[in-house]
Amino acid sequence: MKNNKHISLNLNVRGIEQSPTLAINELSKKLNANGKTIYAMGLGQSPFPVPAPVVETLKHHAHEKDYLNVKGLEALRQAVAHFHRQKDNVDIKANNVLIGPGSKELMFILQLVYYGDLILPTPCWVSYAPQAKIIGRNIKLIHTSFENKWRITPKQLNEFLVSESDQYRPRLLILNYPSNPDGGTYSVDDLKKIASVARKHEMIILSDEIYGQLHYQGNHISIARFYPEGTIISSGLSKWCGAGGWRLGTFAFPSNFDWLMNAMTAVASETFTSVSAPIQYAAVRAFKGGILIERYLWHVRRILSFFANKSVEILHKAGIHVQMPDGGFYLFLDFTPLETKLKSRGITNSKVLCEKLLQEAGVAILPGEAFLIPTEKLIARLAFVNFDGAKALARSETIPLSEALPEDFADHCGFSVLKGMQQIANWTNKK
Amino acid sequence: MKNNKHISLNLNVRGIEQSPTLAINELSKKLNANGKTIYAMGLGQSPFPVPAPVVETLKHHAHEKDYLNVKGLEALRQAVAHFHRQKDNVDIKANNVLIGPGSKELMFILQLVYYGDLILPTPCWVSYAPQAKIIGRNIKLIHTSFENKWRITPKQLNEFLVSESDQYRPRLLILNYPSNPDGGTYSVDDLKKIASVARKHEMIILSDEIYGQLHYQGNHISIARFYPEGTIISSGLSKWCGAGGWRLGTFAFPSNFDWLMNAMTAVASETFTSVSAPIQYAAVRAFKGGILIERYLWHVRRILSFFANKSVEILHKAGIHVQMPDGGFYLFLDFTPLETKLKSRGITNSKVLCEKLLQEAGVAILPGEAFLIPTEKLIARLAFVNFDGAKALARSETIPLSEALPEDFADHCGFSVLKGMQQIANWTNKK
Repeated sequence: MKNNKHISLNLNVRGIEQSPTLAINELSKKLNANGKTIYAMGLGQSPFPVPAPVVETLKHHAHEKDYLNVKGLEALRQAVAHFHRQKDNVDIKANNVLIGPGSKELMFILQLVYYGDLILPTPCWVSYAPQAKIIGRNIKLIHTSFENKWRITPKQLNEFLVSESDQYRPRLLILNYPSNPDGGTYSVDDLKKIASVARKHEMIILSDEIYGQLHYQGNHISIARFYPEGTIISSGLSKWCGAGGWRLGTFAFPSNFDWLMNAMTAVASETFTSVSAPIQYAAVRAFKGGILIERYLWHVRRILSFFANKSVEILHKAGIHVQMPDGGFYLFLDFTPLETKLKSRGITNSKVLCEKLLQEAGVAILPGEAFLIPTEKLIARLAFVNFDGAKALARSETIPLSEALPEDFADHCGFSVLKGMQQIANWTNKK
Repeated sequence: MKNNKHISLNLNVRGIEQSPTLAINELSKKLNANGKTIYAMGLGQSPFPVPAPVVETLKHHAHEKDYLNVKGLEALRQAVAHFHRQKDNVDIKANNVLIGPGSKELMFILQLVYYGDLILPTPCWVSYAPQAKIIGRNIKLIHTSFENKWRITPKQLNEFLVSESDQYRPRLLILNYPSNPDGGTYSVDDLKKIASVARKHEMIILSDEIYGQLHYQGNHISIARFYPEGTIISSGLSKWCGAGGWRLGTFAFPSNFDWLMNAMTAVASETFTSVSAPIQYAAVRAFKGGILIERYLWHVRRILSFFANKSVEILHKAGIHVQMPDGGFYLFLDFTPLETKLKSRGITNSKVLCEKLLQEAGVAILPGEAFLIPTEKLIARLAFVNFDGAKALARSETIPLSEALPEDFADHCGFSVLKGMQQIANWTNKK
């Protein structure tokens, strides 16, 4: 054990780095500490405070110290089930709900427990594939395109499944919408058709709907409505409730998935045990919702869609390809139209793109390769979260929800977002 | 997916049940709900409240919602390092500390990451072996005995290692003291000798010292003092701070173990991400310690050792073999002297023993087989935690620490503990 020759590591883990979203965040902090102005658009963290009644509930339950049930506090499982019944029009019962310390942890345990291939439409969130690698599962990618709004088509999915000789091979398809990294969602028609393809092949869908409540029109629709017998809905407090650092995620299972949920619970009892008790009590308040939470969501959505619109405008002017998102706080930037110019500056892949952009323009965004886009494509993800969420929320509350936010909203509550966009535009087109 | 024929589960997971400590707790609750008086001595949960300044700190930081550094909040890593330097006289720095949602989760990730055999002295805590099974590691058991106070001897360990043809085979030895399930600890002399055996074989020791601060004389000694280059110290808030349900555990690594800590961090970044932010801020207060925390510990130790003494007295009178613990809140009951009598009542293994004891006498304890004792041995673990910790603590505070607790202390603050012992005694010896 005196040197690296002697180390003995699981080869599935050896060489795996920290999740790139977290790594870029730490690098940005470092540059910032050295005096450089950084537009930190790497980490996808909600800039908004946790709604006040939820924080108050945490305080009220700060003394709770008992180990809670592995599957979760009964009142919370009830609240989450109610949330999905109300918001998603799906028949979820409390005993179909599993609570974990972040949906990421639950996804890991799902992949550990379920013995099947992982099917990933790309671009996709950064952690699905590394989890599969650590566990040793096969990963099959289905690439989407800018032209198709980064969405997988039912036809594409069907062709992929038919092309594999093994029709009922156990498979887990992860869908994520509104999406990280591109903010896009699926049409009802496509959801129905994807559901029917999945049903035909008896394929499990993990529907990662953590950004569901951040759909700008509040019109998120779960595929579980059309494929209730095969869809696990993943959600949590991290995005719509602004509580990423609290670490609370939820899975809602089809009622016939006890075999899977119980296996996950067994692993949970040998790993995280239960989610932090005070946090679970506070989460009950969040999932119960009510008028204070709903108003919070209206303001949050209005602010995010305002910044999305303004940002897309600036980026389009600069000649960058970007789809207007349907929800969440990400933009997926495709620099392909400017490829010749950028390549002449030595920018030959998405990693170099992001490094140079950070060093030269102070804008931290994540390379497309982290989202399983081929590295030579000049594509990157941007999280427009570098503004004071509390200030923006309070100001938005002074403006009736029936009105649009005024043109100068960003001047007071989000100049760093639009300045960041301008930095990208200038840097991209500099001579 | 319509029936169990179609399910596809990882075979390492299939058939694994919930951790037995948690399972018996849930069963006890159920019987209790049905009106039966239950002496709930199954789950090993501290009965004491979280110290008031720590709860206050959680309230103060309830709004903290950022994702924290994967390895842990810097201030907490500093506090944990300081804690180990002060209490254990070992040279731990903040950057050798890793924070997780419970030490159990960290142990799982350690076993996932480290590619070696797991060496377990038995009896041992319930989760070490199932974790290894889930991951697919080899488990090698070294059995100890009542006569040897359930401790592994340096000689035994050496003989085991020498008996394996593969001298430098990567191995992880887990030591746990004061121990769950028996409350025993190691002498300084044995710790030194075990350290020297481990050094000779370059074997990593995971020293699970979660009950360290509950050593009744406050004299816990870490093996890391004698084997600093190969010992990982595991600790957390769950036992000495009464905050099991908060879920915060800590690992302190040797400075030359970056390779292992970084691999664990990479997996952490793809699983739990970081520990709940408000909980980490509160934990800083706990690990910083100070006079309020130290006084709390003095009272807690005095109360626990009082109950341990009284309980052992009752059990000895009933003819049950039990060692007086050195710390913590467990007794490991060996019914072997009464074997003939019990077998004539159809009690042929530890599982039946515990089932009948629960059904007939209302006492919930855990079978020895959960701690890897051969099931035919009539041995079981008892957690004497079924008393009102807040009430006991407050009453203890009225009695100078220089004095012993009065004989009638249990009459007011822990009659259910001693009543439970009496139930066991009566049930064991009934005609």
